[in-house]
Amino acid sequence: MPDRLMSREEAEALVTRAFTASGASPAMADSSARALVAAEIDGQKGHGFSRVAAYAAQLRSGKVSGKARPVAQVRGARIDIDAGNGLAFPAIDLAIDQLKALTPRTGVAMAAIRRSHHCGQLGAHVERLAEAGFSALMVANTPKAMAPWGGSSALFGTNPIAFAAPRAPAPPLVIDLSLSKVARGKVMAAQKAGTPIPEGWALDAQGQPTTDPAAALAGTMVPAGDAKGAALALVVEILAATLTGANRSDEASSFFEAEGPPPGVGQMILAFDTGAVAGFGDRLEALLSAITAQEGARLPGQSRLAGRAAAQGGAEVTVPGHLIEEIEALTPC
Amino acid sequence: MPDRLMSREEAEALVTRAFTASGASPAMADSSARALVAAEIDGQKGHGFSRVAAYAAQLRSGKVSGKARPVAQVRGARIDIDAGNGLAFPAIDLAIDQLKALTPRTGVAMAAIRRSHHCGQLGAHVERLAEAGFSALMVANTPKAMAPWGGSSALFGTNPIAFAAPRAPAPPLVIDLSLSKVARGKVMAAQKAGTPIPEGWALDAQGQPTTDPAAALAGTMVPAGDAKGAALALVVEILAATLTGANRSDEASSFFEAEGPPPGVGQMILAFDTGAVAGFGDRLEALLSAITAQEGARLPGQSRLAGRAAAQGGAEVTVPGHLIEEIEALTPC
Repeated sequence: MPDRLMSREEAEALVTRAFTASGASPAMADSSARALVAAEIDGQKGHGFSRVAAYAAQLRSGKVSGKARPVAQVRGARIDIDAGNGLAFPAIDLAIDQLKALTPRTGVAMAAIRRSHHCGQLGAHVERLAEAGFSALMVANTPKAMAPWGGSSALFGTNPIAFAAPRAPAPPLVIDLSLSKVARGKVMAAQKAGTPIPEGWALDAQGQPTTDPAAALAGTMVPAGDAKGAALALVVEILAATLTGANRSDEASSFFEAEGPPPGVGQMILAFDTGAVAGFGDRLEALLSAITAQEGARLPGQSRLAGRAAAQGGAEVTVPGHLIEEIEALTPC
Repeated sequence: MPDRLMSREEAEALVTRAFTASGASPAMADSSARALVAAEIDGQKGHGFSRVAAYAAQLRSGKVSGKARPVAQVRGARIDIDAGNGLAFPAIDLAIDQLKALTPRTGVAMAAIRRSHHCGQLGAHVERLAEAGFSALMVANTPKAMAPWGGSSALFGTNPIAFAAPRAPAPPLVIDLSLSKVARGKVMAAQKAGTPIPEGWALDAQGQPTTDPAAALAGTMVPAGDAKGAALALVVEILAATLTGANRSDEASSFFEAEGPPPGVGQMILAFDTGAVAGFGDRLEALLSAITAQEGARLPGQSRLAGRAAAQGGAEVTVPGHLIEEIEALTPC
């Protein structure tokens, strides 16, 4: 089947069908479809349509609980959310709603999400808080991919960090990075293409530098900033997993495979009330202007806006033909 | 004068004398002396005795207000602290006291410190919270030293990040890193020694890689993890300065020179109540054991413990003779 241009809404409806047909509640299917389509439009294909088949398979095998409903418990400025081993997005939606309600009263608040799953582009979640006027910092742990510094066995995930700050009338500033030097997907792509990877990306299973993608996939990814990145991965691990009550990265099962126990990873989101800070908006604009005034420098996170601008009008997103076929096979009329 | 071995208390009394003789209140002098002596013992000489003369000169010139008393205002889970352009340590002491009182009620709390100064080793501050049973994350902005990614002019400080978590009965886990690939002090040392620096440490004023320490000092430090480190420096800048109401790194005057306006930088400390997290201690130990079980891997922050172990008994710290002379000249009997 050829690829098809669809509106955002059509694409969301298609992906929703895949998830409901696989056992997800309508709320979980809707929320997850919205997140994946948005990632695809933002140019984050690793968190977009490429995940649909894996999510559906995990829903069907029962590794992901399609009927899970996230539950929040608020104590002071802390919101604990049990994602119930469902897909992550309903829990994240709940965290964002609760943080929006709580943070104006407390000045700072945190959501601690446990028994969670792959949460897609972190930047999109903190961006929603920034659109509501909050600054937000989010960390997540992910299945093991990086060794502690000096070691050779994977222990930490690539453990991403995202941050957003509101800018009116411009879209929020969004920073979104993982703590590996390069994404593991680039090593997988090199393996498929049969090409070596540059030295410095990955270590083999003995902890030695390698340019062989197969050896790299059996080994570990090099942290961004070497020892400092490995130390930050440990910080993220404690914030996102130890402090939330989630599984460690090396306890978490794959986000891709349909078999095994649920990954049970965690996410932490911190929201800051910028309304309580006199002159926040002007001070932020002055800082960002000092960046863009430099030749060659640009603000992080701007590429997502290009994808969104390109996705204006009725025909917004290219849906791969194989995905349409797969979903139609799941949901015979 | 020869160097002298002193007990911690003797060294603190000596440094306190330097600050009170330069116009600091007894409380500010005590707090600052304790922090500098502790850094020296922990092996962090860049935050130890090397700072005494510069602090004293800034107190005498009035760039640092010796009579400042930090003032806290608590709203919800947020504590705003105006350091009053004094030395930073009394404000940090107040932040730690307030966070200890507030965090058990709120689950998470933050201290936002503005009109502040050089705060020494961040790790020591979060460690005090961890000794009281809290996890803590601290960020600070510092005078400009790094360019935004792609740019060539210094805009961000080396903007350190520290994190600590309680371990009973072991001393806390402490992570403390700055976001430059190497400390600027290493470039200064190379300049003094007349040796080139390795490529990759710094850029010249045109944004080009350089091995000339003088060109590096006129240029910028390379961020750890390149573009990712620069992005994290922006995150720290917004957390530590924009969200606290402090000066930007490129607005802040030197921490060393006696002239000019006060630096007015900021610090943010977040504290997390680990007592509210079931099994926190056991989960943390399991994570840390998974690190130390790997050959070649070790926990971050352990070198400070070696310094402390070496500093047992009556004679704890070597005080340089030139420092004793300088302080005696400041405080004639």
